[in-house]
Amino acid sequence: MSYRIERDSIGEIKVAEDKLWGAQTQRSKENFPIGIEKMPIEVIRAFAVLKKSAAISNHKLGKLSAEKSEAIVQAANEIIEGKWNEHFPLVVWQTGSGTQSNMNVNEVISHRGNQLINSDETLHPNDDVNMSQSSNDTFPTALHIAAVLEVEDQLLPALKTLKETFAAKQEQFKDIIKIGRTHLQDATPLTLGQEISGWHHMLEKNEEMIKQSVEYMKELAIGGTAVGTGINAHPDFGDEVAKEISSTLGKTFISAPNKFHALTSHDQVVYAHGALKALAADLMKIANDVRWLASGPRSGLGEITIPANEPGSSIMPGKVNPTQSEALTMVSAQVLGNDVTIGIAASQGNFELNVFKPVIIYNFLQSVRLLTDSMQAFNDKCAVGIEPNKEKIQHNLENSLMLVTALNPHIGYENAAKIAKLAHQEGTTLKEAAVKTGLLTEEQFKQWVNPANMIHPSK
Amino acid sequence: MSYRIERDSIGEIKVAEDKLWGAQTQRSKENFPIGIEKMPIEVIRAFAVLKKSAAISNHKLGKLSAEKSEAIVQAANEIIEGKWNEHFPLVVWQTGSGTQSNMNVNEVISHRGNQLINSDETLHPNDDVNMSQSSNDTFPTALHIAAVLEVEDQLLPALKTLKETFAAKQEQFKDIIKIGRTHLQDATPLTLGQEISGWHHMLEKNEEMIKQSVEYMKELAIGGTAVGTGINAHPDFGDEVAKEISSTLGKTFISAPNKFHALTSHDQVVYAHGALKALAADLMKIANDVRWLASGPRSGLGEITIPANEPGSSIMPGKVNPTQSEALTMVSAQVLGNDVTIGIAASQGNFELNVFKPVIIYNFLQSVRLLTDSMQAFNDKCAVGIEPNKEKIQHNLENSLMLVTALNPHIGYENAAKIAKLAHQEGTTLKEAAVKTGLLTEEQFKQWVNPANMIHPSK
Amino acid sequence: MSYRIERDSIGEIKVAEDKLWGAQTQRSKENFPIGIEKMPIEVIRAFAVLKKSAAISNHKLGKLSAEKSEAIVQAANEIIEGKWNEHFPLVVWQTGSGTQSNMNVNEVISHRGNQLINSDETLHPNDDVNMSQSSNDTFPTALHIAAVLEVEDQLLPALKTLKETFAAKQEQFKDIIKIGRTHLQDATPLTLGQEISGWHHMLEKNEEMIKQSVEYMKELAIGGTAVGTGINAHPDFGDEVAKEISSTLGKTFISAPNKFHALTSHDQVVYAHGALKALAADLMKIANDVRWLASGPRSGLGEITIPANEPGSSIMPGKVNPTQSEALTMVSAQVLGNDVTIGIAASQGNFELNVFKPVIIYNFLQSVRLLTDSMQAFNDKCAVGIEPNKEKIQHNLENSLMLVTALNPHIGYENAAKIAKLAHQEGTTLKEAAVKTGLLTEEQFKQWVNPANMIHPSK
Amino acid sequence: MSYRIERDSIGEIKVAEDKLWGAQTQRSKENFPIGIEKMPIEVIRAFAVLKKSAAISNHKLGKLSAEKSEAIVQAANEIIEGKWNEHFPLVVWQTGSGTQSNMNVNEVISHRGNQLINSDETLHPNDDVNMSQSSNDTFPTALHIAAVLEVEDQLLPALKTLKETFAAKQEQFKDIIKIGRTHLQDATPLTLGQEISGWHHMLEKNEEMIKQSVEYMKELAIGGTAVGTGINAHPDFGDEVAKEISSTLGKTFISAPNKFHALTSHDQVVYAHGALKALAADLMKIANDVRWLASGPRSGLGEITIPANEPGSSIMPGKVNPTQSEALTMVSAQVLGNDVTIGIAASQGNFELNVFKPVIIYNFLQSVRLLTDSMQAFNDKCAVGIEPNKEKIQHNLENSLMLVTALNPHIGYENAAKIAKLAHQEGTTLKEAAVKTGLLTEEQFKQWVNPANMIHPSK
Repeated sequence: MSYRIERDSIGEIKVAEDKLWGAQTQRSKENFPIGIEKMPIEVIRAFAVLKKSAAISNHKLGKLSAEKSEAIVQAANEIIEGKWNEHFPLVVWQTGSGTQSNMNVNEVISHRGNQLINSDETLHPNDDVNMSQSSNDTFPTALHIAAVLEVEDQLLPALKTLKETFAAKQEQFKDIIKIGRTHLQDATPLTLGQEISGWHHMLEKNEEMIKQSVEYMKELAIGGTAVGTGINAHPDFGDEVAKEISSTLGKTFISAPNKFHALTSHDQVVYAHGALKALAADLMKIANDVRWLASGPRSGLGEITIPANEPGSSIMPGKVNPTQSEALTMVSAQVLGNDVTIGIAASQGNFELNVFKPVIIYNFLQSVRLLTDSMQAFNDKCAVGIEPNKEKIQHNLENSLMLVTALNPHIGYENAAKIAKLAHQEGTTLKEAAVKTGLLTEEQFKQWVNPANMIHPSK
Repeated sequence: MSYRIERDSIGEIKVAEDKLWGAQTQRSKENFPIGIEKMPIEVIRAFAVLKKSAAISNHKLGKLSAEKSEAIVQAANEIIEGKWNEHFPLVVWQTGSGTQSNMNVNEVISHRGNQLINSDETLHPNDDVNMSQSSNDTFPTALHIAAVLEVEDQLLPALKTLKETFAAKQEQFKDIIKIGRTHLQDATPLTLGQEISGWHHMLEKNEEMIKQSVEYMKELAIGGTAVGTGINAHPDFGDEVAKEISSTLGKTFISAPNKFHALTSHDQVVYAHGALKALAADLMKIANDVRWLASGPRSGLGEITIPANEPGSSIMPGKVNPTQSEALTMVSAQVLGNDVTIGIAASQGNFELNVFKPVIIYNFLQSVRLLTDSMQAFNDKCAVGIEPNKEKIQHNLENSLMLVTALNPHIGYENAAKIAKLAHQEGTTLKEAAVKTGLLTEEQFKQWVNPANMIHPSK
Repeated sequence: MSYRIERDSIGEIKVAEDKLWGAQTQRSKENFPIGIEKMPIEVIRAFAVLKKSAAISNHKLGKLSAEKSEAIVQAANEIIEGKWNEHFPLVVWQTGSGTQSNMNVNEVISHRGNQLINSDETLHPNDDVNMSQSSNDTFPTALHIAAVLEVEDQLLPALKTLKETFAAKQEQFKDIIKIGRTHLQDATPLTLGQEISGWHHMLEKNEEMIKQSVEYMKELAIGGTAVGTGINAHPDFGDEVAKEISSTLGKTFISAPNKFHALTSHDQVVYAHGALKALAADLMKIANDVRWLASGPRSGLGEITIPANEPGSSIMPGKVNPTQSEALTMVSAQVLGNDVTIGIAASQGNFELNVFKPVIIYNFLQSVRLLTDSMQAFNDKCAVGIEPNKEKIQHNLENSLMLVTALNPHIGYENAAKIAKLAHQEGTTLKEAAVKTGLLTEEQFKQWVNPANMIHPSK
Repeated sequence: MSYRIERDSIGEIKVAEDKLWGAQTQRSKENFPIGIEKMPIEVIRAFAVLKKSAAISNHKLGKLSAEKSEAIVQAANEIIEGKWNEHFPLVVWQTGSGTQSNMNVNEVISHRGNQLINSDETLHPNDDVNMSQSSNDTFPTALHIAAVLEVEDQLLPALKTLKETFAAKQEQFKDIIKIGRTHLQDATPLTLGQEISGWHHMLEKNEEMIKQSVEYMKELAIGGTAVGTGINAHPDFGDEVAKEISSTLGKTFISAPNKFHALTSHDQVVYAHGALKALAADLMKIANDVRWLASGPRSGLGEITIPANEPGSSIMPGKVNPTQSEALTMVSAQVLGNDVTIGIAASQGNFELNVFKPVIIYNFLQSVRLLTDSMQAFNDKCAVGIEPNKEKIQHNLENSLMLVTALNPHIGYENAAKIAKLAHQEGTTLKEAAVKTGLLTEEQFKQWVNPANMIHPSK
């Protein structure tokens, strides 16, 4: 293996010949042999978008030559295209400002840019690529960009897909009347469509809350430099960069109105992840409903069937399990744990900086990725294939004692309770018990107790 | 002690003569001797608002006599005034739908209403007070009402008070230039006003996020009754009740568009508590900054002083501790834990109902109350008394090596680094080191390195 | 209301005439109007045990007169008996060292002691009651004492009661063969006794883990005084006090071998609460199993019945809900949240002290109390009344397709799978399908597929 | 790309020619395109140990031919050596029993075994490699094995290294007297060695708690098969396999006494991770102490220096940051979040199985790996290089007002407080203030107030 010598303000260090990174990346690689979690590539890409926008802005503001700017832009574009992914070897567990990943990007861009540059100038990772910037404002900027992109372009479409599947099922099953269940106990009836409409509405609300909360992350720290004052940056730099980023990404980002907040607080990420947690909680509920309704095949509730995608058991032949539900509920548990890590990390800022940034974005992006992928898989391999087991549904409905609730307005809660208890004790139908009590006639029972009338409010 | 006999659909039970509650409350009291956490009185009050609005609506819709309605309204008003607080003895750890607290309210109102009623009719707790309702829609309705009231009328005003204190301090200290700190290490300067502006802006953002997220809880489950279908309720009931509640409380509540969601998902509470968690995280950061800046008196950072409200130590005479910061950070830790309980609880709904409602509202209201009270106390007993220790601030500023950052645009990052290191090694001032390196003259140093120019972006 | 004037090193302050507390308690009361959570009375009682033991030890070591010591002991005993509960008005949300509650105890004891003392000496809260002590070592000492007492004397007996109920049920139902369920899907059979033996063994393990982890908290900080060095305490003081405490309580406490650890780390509490969390996780699982097995009455699994303790629904007459399970699962969610608060709080120590002590013990004792009470209520009102629904159990067993697993050793997994699928598709019994495939004869089927042979390993 | 056709009980499926896996692995790969988190290789290795031990045991018990057993053992050994890592492509987010990873191992072993086998027999993944087993008992067995190995062989040695570093520093700095700090405020003195002894003792306790809690995971589920009854396994199988595993690994594993518990509860993992959390909390405290004590270089506490491993800032030249502390505190935050995921997952078992196993072991192993690596890096790159800044330490000590505590036994707490306050107000030394008050003479002051006498208990 052949090396070249790189140097930084600490001294010299050997870097593998075929790598574009420089001294500081190499040092971090050696100083932090911790874990297997690489700094997410989404953050690296967001950094490249930022570096490119910064170069253009610095040139516009008269601080960087056209040639240097152009070389930075080209190198950054190559990173965005994914051409140099293996040149970002650093892990999440490094300095808490993400300085070393910022320098990794600076070093790769300057190294690659120097191969591309159309002049005899030489790009310097700090003086040129990091011009008017600090890790302290670039990392949170990249953090926000990556978070917004992944939520808006990955998670929300997957959520929409699942939501639409539920919308279709809700329509499709709107006339299938089934027993309701509260406290896991038989309750008054509703339609299967109504039951699914609850799931649909959860996703509807989640979508709204996520969209809304993500907006806050469109405020960018860029322009704050080292401590929020913007030292060594032009006063227009933050706004210019935000404009460039917006134009590149087709989303409206702005320069944060208070940079001291932007460097040291991550309340906006906590808030947005709170919305993801609300989604996770709903998904756990939905996945549980699906697997319970599909439980059986003989001794469960068995009111729906779901696709059999794989052999369910290594020992019990012919078993089919609700595996997509299981993946989804495991993801939910993960998101609830990630939420705690993010909350703790966000609470630990000191003075002008919060140094838990890498762990925050790592957890945020993991949540987004897992929610996205598992909703999509759950949709494709399970939700689209949900079908009612009409026979079982009808059987349950006919046997239900809770249809007695329809009698409350006619004979009062206490008399109705007597009928339900009698039927339960004697194992008879409600009608038989009702007539036996003498509280109403068979005709009245038939008129008053009709599941079809019990699935909507009544005048 | 003298008793009367009460009965419900289970049978007879003895209730103390001087209590307004009935059989079901008594049963719950005996069946759940768990813990010391009473169902929060804010929930009871919200229930009373709801029961009153329901009675008026049922009367309007022709289902309840004027006399019965009026008696319910009067009894409910007395509960709202706090006249019968000791008649709500149930704890949080009861049935997960809160049925027993709903019945407690129904029983107290019917009992008290029967003392007040202007006719020979008799109020029945289920048939009249609970008319057109179920615990399954009333409890989440009361939950949302209580949560909204406490956040909007208690927490937000306290937050505003503290925010305004910071606004005043920010203005007051806008000319005091001090050392910045990142990674706990000396960094480039900023003003004390700027530092505090970060805290101010956190509260600004928190206020915005909390206000926004609370809106979702203005959708009420009422009208859904047992499983969301609205069985036994008039189709207009939900809207009517929401209107009455809005008019009573002067806030706009609406009937939830999907009642299946409203009974079984608490995504809205998870989301709103996520905003409270973001506040808690920021408050921990602010409280930490305050106590660190006030650390000393001789061997700490000592850049500000805070009021000495009490003797700090039982053994070290004359010690003064940042006790308000400590209370606030303990509250933050509690809110982060409560957030987990709420998230788990919200994820555990099944079919038509989530039966973790009492533990959800208990934790939500505890968070609101603790945040409210501790922000207010922190404001009154600490924040308003923050004063700069100008001598220490000036001393630190003059000694700082990080003023060297101002040289980057003039001599480059690496040369600047050499100067800082030289000063550090030799224990000299930056200026001495700068001149010694020959990289710039004393005049240039004076011109370029001026803290007053380093606290804002530079052209 | 009449007042007296009290003073401390800060100055004078008015205290209600009928209260035994002094200046510092009064200050804390006024400075921390936060929340409704009083410092748990268990902590106050533990403090009284400690103060009494300290007085005896100080006397033995020649530092305190017999009369003073005796007066302190008497006053402390009265507190232990619960005579002065209302004289401890402070909340959890105070200084993080608990100094103010330590002083509250010092003040009440000195005030009350001065009424009792048999000499013309006067007790001083700091110099006498707090002699050789600091809040920094007394609070963690009281914290450990209270935690150990509540776990050993309250929680473990309740756990044992429930465990024994399961042991009895396990024996009682050892011959009832039922269908197993994995992934919520029908699986191979087991006995109801075996199923319950799993619950029993969980409590067995929990008991072991809790007992073991609690041992660590028998190390006491006392003797460390202000920062762990033991300044102003006699070198034998810690050991002497630990001996007195042990003798009073009949449990073996020791003086912690490293006092710097004892003041600043609460790893032992985190560890012990981890054991409580393991219990909470198991209880959630058990409570869920119980309510699912009891689900119905007509359209659920319905394999067991549980006692009907109260009307289940305010709208659905005759409904009976698994309310004890619901209380227990809500408690579990609370304990999981408390665990987070404790973990965060324990992580935030600085230098010689952790100042999150009150929030740690508040959460720990809440978890203990809730687990204790809810296990006891679950036992008394639910577990003891669990009965099998033999008819349903038998019906499910006979219909199960997973009995096919018994064929694996005879015809191989893949052939067995074919039979199960055929039976599922055609809605027949396994036997019919087996014979139809020609893979085995009816006689072979009868010989090989016998549920009674499937509930234990086979040679 | 060339394929071969594989089949399972669902039907046929294409698998890449160069892969050793079979139909079920392929299905899982296609059905669960979720996230980037592979099933940890440590679990795969543990599975290989188990499969090998099972084959040997099945042969011993007369159920498997010598040739088949030998082929399985050889193939498993190759997996253990890491020869086939890329043949385990499945992610964590699959079925919650881990069935598909069990089948992945079964398939790779049977495929590879068939290449190696010394007879004309053919290994079947279910009938031979999975003989006498089910995913339901093999996955939790592999989970426990992997967890125990990683904790005992990776984490504990790293912990020991750091502990020994602190032991050495504690000895080395045992005579350096410095100011103590409580509530971040100056307190009575201690030695730097004593301060570090607190860190050392934390690791001592952590080691003890971790070792103890890990023992529980040495109980293995193997022998329980599908639901815990051991169907299709020989009654001695569990014990035999545990013996083989123990002999292979040189650690004593046993067959779990209750298999129903073993399949459905993960209380033991919750408990063991609770010990890891206690470690994480302590490490956050230690890392914070280190970075605060090293804060500066000019305007912080500055009492110790730590190695400068890399340039600290991309904009502030010459800045050195406590980056190892930052990595360690981020890891701590991660572990606290993982703990929540594990707790939730463990609480969600139903009936005979908990289907959150993959997410449990994923989080457990991540915590172990991150704690191991970050302790090691912190030790190597930071702790070993901690040096006292004697000048600063001495300066702080001499200025401290809290030396006044030594006067309590001589002049009482209140008089001592007066002296401290006077010195604070007038900015003088304690001695000057003491003499000024007339409460003691200069000689008495010198005699009583001697830091060297304040660092241990005094008679």
